[in-house]
Amino acid sequence: MSQNKKVVLAYSGGLDTSVAVKWLQEQGYEVVACCLDVGEGKDLAFVQQKALQVGAVQSYMIDAKEEFAEEFALAALQAHTMYEGKYPLVSALSRPLIAKKLVEVAEKENAVAVAHGCTGKGNDQVRFEVSIKALNPDLEVLAPVREWKWSRDEEIDYAQKHGIPIPINLDSPYSIDQNLWGRSNECGILEDPWAAPPEGAYDLTNPLEKTPDTPEIIEITFEKGKPTAIDGIQYSLSDLILHLNEVAGQHGVGRIDHVENRLVGIKSREVYECPGAVTLLKAHKELEDLTLVKEVAHFKPIVEQKMAELIYNGLWFSPLKSALDAFLQETQKNVTGVVRVKLFKGHAIVEGRKSPYSLYDENLATYTKADEFDHDAAVGFINLWGLPTKVNSIVNKKEQVKA
Amino acid sequence: MSQNKKVVLAYSGGLDTSVAVKWLQEQGYEVVACCLDVGEGKDLAFVQQKALQVGAVQSYMIDAKEEFAEEFALAALQAHTMYEGKYPLVSALSRPLIAKKLVEVAEKENAVAVAHGCTGKGNDQVRFEVSIKALNPDLEVLAPVREWKWSRDEEIDYAQKHGIPIPINLDSPYSIDQNLWGRSNECGILEDPWAAPPEGAYDLTNPLEKTPDTPEIIEITFEKGKPTAIDGIQYSLSDLILHLNEVAGQHGVGRIDHVENRLVGIKSREVYECPGAVTLLKAHKELEDLTLVKEVAHFKPIVEQKMAELIYNGLWFSPLKSALDAFLQETQKNVTGVVRVKLFKGHAIVEGRKSPYSLYDENLATYTKADEFDHDAAVGFINLWGLPTKVNSIVNKKEQVKA
Amino acid sequence: MSQNKKVVLAYSGGLDTSVAVKWLQEQGYEVVACCLDVGEGKDLAFVQQKALQVGAVQSYMIDAKEEFAEEFALAALQAHTMYEGKYPLVSALSRPLIAKKLVEVAEKENAVAVAHGCTGKGNDQVRFEVSIKALNPDLEVLAPVREWKWSRDEEIDYAQKHGIPIPINLDSPYSIDQNLWGRSNECGILEDPWAAPPEGAYDLTNPLEKTPDTPEIIEITFEKGKPTAIDGIQYSLSDLILHLNEVAGQHGVGRIDHVENRLVGIKSREVYECPGAVTLLKAHKELEDLTLVKEVAHFKPIVEQKMAELIYNGLWFSPLKSALDAFLQETQKNVTGVVRVKLFKGHAIVEGRKSPYSLYDENLATYTKADEFDHDAAVGFINLWGLPTKVNSIVNKKEQVKA
Amino acid sequence: MSQNKKVVLAYSGGLDTSVAVKWLQEQGYEVVACCLDVGEGKDLAFVQQKALQVGAVQSYMIDAKEEFAEEFALAALQAHTMYEGKYPLVSALSRPLIAKKLVEVAEKENAVAVAHGCTGKGNDQVRFEVSIKALNPDLEVLAPVREWKWSRDEEIDYAQKHGIPIPINLDSPYSIDQNLWGRSNECGILEDPWAAPPEGAYDLTNPLEKTPDTPEIIEITFEKGKPTAIDGIQYSLSDLILHLNEVAGQHGVGRIDHVENRLVGIKSREVYECPGAVTLLKAHKELEDLTLVKEVAHFKPIVEQKMAELIYNGLWFSPLKSALDAFLQETQKNVTGVVRVKLFKGHAIVEGRKSPYSLYDENLATYTKADEFDHDAAVGFINLWGLPTKVNSIVNKKEQVKA
Repeated sequence: MSQNKKVVLAYSGGLDTSVAVKWLQEQGYEVVACCLDVGEGKDLAFVQQKALQVGAVQSYMIDAKEEFAEEFALAALQAHTMYEGKYPLVSALSRPLIAKKLVEVAEKENAVAVAHGCTGKGNDQVRFEVSIKALNPDLEVLAPVREWKWSRDEEIDYAQKHGIPIPINLDSPYSIDQNLWGRSNECGILEDPWAAPPEGAYDLTNPLEKTPDTPEIIEITFEKGKPTAIDGIQYSLSDLILHLNEVAGQHGVGRIDHVENRLVGIKSREVYECPGAVTLLKAHKELEDLTLVKEVAHFKPIVEQKMAELIYNGLWFSPLKSALDAFLQETQKNVTGVVRVKLFKGHAIVEGRKSPYSLYDENLATYTKADEFDHDAAVGFINLWGLPTKVNSIVNKKEQVKA
Repeated sequence: MSQNKKVVLAYSGGLDTSVAVKWLQEQGYEVVACCLDVGEGKDLAFVQQKALQVGAVQSYMIDAKEEFAEEFALAALQAHTMYEGKYPLVSALSRPLIAKKLVEVAEKENAVAVAHGCTGKGNDQVRFEVSIKALNPDLEVLAPVREWKWSRDEEIDYAQKHGIPIPINLDSPYSIDQNLWGRSNECGILEDPWAAPPEGAYDLTNPLEKTPDTPEIIEITFEKGKPTAIDGIQYSLSDLILHLNEVAGQHGVGRIDHVENRLVGIKSREVYECPGAVTLLKAHKELEDLTLVKEVAHFKPIVEQKMAELIYNGLWFSPLKSALDAFLQETQKNVTGVVRVKLFKGHAIVEGRKSPYSLYDENLATYTKADEFDHDAAVGFINLWGLPTKVNSIVNKKEQVKA
Repeated sequence: MSQNKKVVLAYSGGLDTSVAVKWLQEQGYEVVACCLDVGEGKDLAFVQQKALQVGAVQSYMIDAKEEFAEEFALAALQAHTMYEGKYPLVSALSRPLIAKKLVEVAEKENAVAVAHGCTGKGNDQVRFEVSIKALNPDLEVLAPVREWKWSRDEEIDYAQKHGIPIPINLDSPYSIDQNLWGRSNECGILEDPWAAPPEGAYDLTNPLEKTPDTPEIIEITFEKGKPTAIDGIQYSLSDLILHLNEVAGQHGVGRIDHVENRLVGIKSREVYECPGAVTLLKAHKELEDLTLVKEVAHFKPIVEQKMAELIYNGLWFSPLKSALDAFLQETQKNVTGVVRVKLFKGHAIVEGRKSPYSLYDENLATYTKADEFDHDAAVGFINLWGLPTKVNSIVNKKEQVKA
Repeated sequence: MSQNKKVVLAYSGGLDTSVAVKWLQEQGYEVVACCLDVGEGKDLAFVQQKALQVGAVQSYMIDAKEEFAEEFALAALQAHTMYEGKYPLVSALSRPLIAKKLVEVAEKENAVAVAHGCTGKGNDQVRFEVSIKALNPDLEVLAPVREWKWSRDEEIDYAQKHGIPIPINLDSPYSIDQNLWGRSNECGILEDPWAAPPEGAYDLTNPLEKTPDTPEIIEITFEKGKPTAIDGIQYSLSDLILHLNEVAGQHGVGRIDHVENRLVGIKSREVYECPGAVTLLKAHKELEDLTLVKEVAHFKPIVEQKMAELIYNGLWFSPLKSALDAFLQETQKNVTGVVRVKLFKGHAIVEGRKSPYSLYDENLATYTKADEFDHDAAVGFINLWGLPTKVNSIVNKKEQVKA
């Protein structure tokens, strides 16, 4: 019976996925809508209802904020993932979690397919599809929007013909995705990389011109690389990030304007706001500077760059992710302590850091009489450290003379 | 005859190197002082004179600002050298140039040795000595301060006994080194990493609280990776950097507070100010984001990290430096264009970038009807991109069921 | 006029490309055949003639052996490119050169397209198409075999219907590609990775069981990283490699059996024979061990791995290739000298190496009285080298006691 | 009381450490000798006795073969550690274990110091001292041989004066270190890198000329990356390696002649024999080629190179080692299966490999009708894979025309 052929659709409440409900029905599917709360701050009860209204046979609304914080945002924080040195992975982080939930619902509902609303040009389609195939290679993946290739006008026609409500903000020039870790925005005006982003492109952060003239000093407590408290008050990780988004956002922290290389081969320009993420990344790095031994500090960036690429490229559920994770977990054992951050005029300035595992040894570092450093050791050290260079110089001088 | 046994001393005018002149004489050397202008903004004519006054037989003052800018600062800019992700290499950049000049003077003066005023605990002794050995392995290197191991009081006694003037700022808690690329500062109070740096530790930058309330917008022109003009006005590179130090410094750009891993095995905390460097680094990176092809953009950071470590570790005059340079030069061919930067409240915000070599293709990036991107290609791409992950999943599922 | 719509076809003389001539004609193209001699040792005059016989309007035969040796094989040698540590890039090296020649002919002939005979599953289609797009993005690329998707029987039917001669070795189980740098072979029996490759899979090398019982000692001269002479006799590079293929092949050097990860997402197993390449790679590495300074020797493998992946992945004509090349060229300046190699029982054993630029210093290395090494320096060196580890240990011990 | 001031000496039974017993006594220490069996195949009961005879107050003989195999050799195997691509870490692997045992004995015996017999020029002094400081930073480390700096004659004089027996092989030109994982040899004649190593330099392997004319085929079983059986017979890891040393050694497998860069800044040439290690490394790599997903296979070499450097450089007991280990352990989960190896004429040729976790999918790899690969997907893949290169080409062509 055809009613058994179910598809689970990642439903956002917008025009594309609302039209997709109907379109998938026309392809012979029963549509189960699935909407995740990963901290985008929308009215998701409304979205859940709307799915049913436009024809879904069932509508899930899953609060995944804490799972997102603990499993995804925390990994990004500890790996300092910054794609191309700038983008702290907003959508790239939530896609695998959404894929995981879609698969879980699909397996529970005996669905044969899952569907997402991505077009054919973005990174998210890759992240969804590779994640889904990794989690359940038997599920079919449908991408209605990529498949139907309608113009905006054709899509509106279709919606009106089928009684699908047109969102009031349809003419917004912005295309937004948001979660706990930040907010991303592509928009028409950004397509000229010489033009500054319009103020309306931002939502989570104050413009510098409107930030308070008084700084705010906060102390962030980390335990084994995980932020657990602000100013001594314990928070769940999702609450801590949401709280920081507010506090740091008010001070204008975390605006990013990035011309980036997409996995699908083009350069695109996007604007991000990540007030909490940027604050935590700065604080966490400073605590690592204090507690990681030099050799770890110098190799970890190699692992970090690979992790950022891997997540950006949709390979979250892959064996390399697990192996990089194992490395990173091992580095976090002593990343425990308190970091004092001054939020002011768009900056998250680390002013102080302390840890019971601090490897900063004042008696070695000091230039006072307490100095315990062996100054004579330097002579031998330099002698051997520079020996290859010196031998090279002797040999080449000799050769130059010959030549 | 003993008058032929000459040493060339890197002379700064401070107490240590002034005492060193006398001390080296007592060891039987004629001392040739050598003072370099790499943009530290001190009265070097006075320093040159003082060397003679404290006993040098000759005193050189060399203006190396443009050479420093063109050969050293530019390499650091194009390689985005940031030691441990934070320190843009201030002293680490000038040491090899000073070493080079000392060797040139030593060869001209037929000196048998060169001398520097470093202690046994810093990185600079390594940089001086390895550079000198690389350039002329026959020259002996002396390090009087490291050798005599006097306490401050013993040194003052010696100075007074030998009529060496005591600098009036002797009680300054700060130990400063400065050049075009920035200013570094170690000081006693910084030895507690929980304490914020005192305002007095800074000199090139306004505190955020005192920066202008009106932003300054500048346009920086780059040609093949080299900044050549600001707001359309051509500058020599050293003048351009000095100019930016002023302009960006006024807006509080470029303060850095870093707990770093020294080459000699300890962690130390230092404060840096690099207003021009930070502004240029940001602008240059954005122009690369626009003009470098993805594969180059993703490998260059590996080369950059190696370059930063190598320079930090004193291996400027080494074959690896030349090889990394060759890679980097090749990447700069198309890094030509203009970057618009907003200097405001400690930020150097890139608002726009343009280039005749821009690889950002609006017709591929756009979501308008002008879109030339082949959306269907994504389906095949994802299929093959995710294939290893999918096969892995199929094999492991099978195994899980078996187990 | 339709006769102006020309396609240049990479023609091998085999069934696929012979059928493709006819098939392309049916699509309305005039076919210009183009056959390259990159050292595969086939009768190419015959192939050139056959192209005309099956319907090409023109047939090029280009001797590209020396260009292949100087531009492609040499780059692979100096970069020690070994994909996944095993495969020295046989077909991956010739594809970009063939693409280059196809484009040159296409531009000369005013063709609108080029065509290759690859299927949809291999790496070579990627290498051809990306190279062609890099060299002339306006040319269309056709892949008849990938497009027609015929079974072997359907293809033979088509050939017989159109009077295309069926090669006598059509039932050979082997699929071969060969050039100066080696020979690759995929075949049915190899599809079981537990089965040993049959002896018939090999052609360039003797089986170990049949190699001479007397070793052959040769001396290879390198100048700036390029092999120029064997036993004192100068050769052009292509002749030198061909000569070594014979000599080393007789001794059974260079058989490789590899399960590899293709760019298109699958694992495949292939058998390679590279007697000359393997001999040269060993000899060149040993000369580098003698002449490269440590820091270069330790970073070069990172560049090498990237170069191998890039070439394997079809990005020869890309900016990253040029930048990696620049690095590598800089490293070869002193790779000059002679290497003595013993060819015996499948081995190319380097027994001796010498160079005017040797950095091996007997007076430093010796344990005799001539020893010039400063043994005391080691004490200081170890002290500082181990300092981070020691501080970490002290801090963690303290913590363990506390806990 | 002075009798409480104990030192634990790494005792080998040779002249240097025998003399060191007496010399340390003269410095006021009670000497506890400690001799480890890590598979060097010497008569260690004799060595244990000799220590007492030359004056040690106590003499330990510790069988650490299985611990060495399980903790050290296995890590080297799974990380494919090959220093500079050639040296599989013989002495570098045993030094940290010896250091660990010395520290354990020192703590048990309440010793204040440990001592080793290294000179000031090798890597081993660094490995011993950094390991000891890492394990117990309170222990003093003594290096009598490095300190006394006697010539050979002076040392013999001292020995004769104190009744220390002179070993009969004192005039051997060879300096040997051996354990389960292999045998290293430095010797005078090797100091000329143009000279071939004399046959007498080798002990564990037959020369190719004397290897059997009949190959030996063995099947090695791996479980999670660890070899557990040969030809179906289970072995403890140390026995398995010892067994392979014999079998593969007979066939001449594992001779290595290496000009290497020591940590202490010089190039040295050494000869190694590692028949078991080389056989296992080849087999293990092939099983990984079958079972590791591409992304892991391509990043693991970066981790491997770092691991090899770290171990070579004496940082076994360091946090980076633990973090790299965690990565590697995660990669070994599916490295389970059987590898068939043909030992013949110095080769360990992998002829077949199979695994329940094999990611080689015949139905994807085949060119028969069973082919399940989606050939059309390649078109889209190539389109996007080559897009950055193509856009770069279009932009640059345009520019060339303009220029």
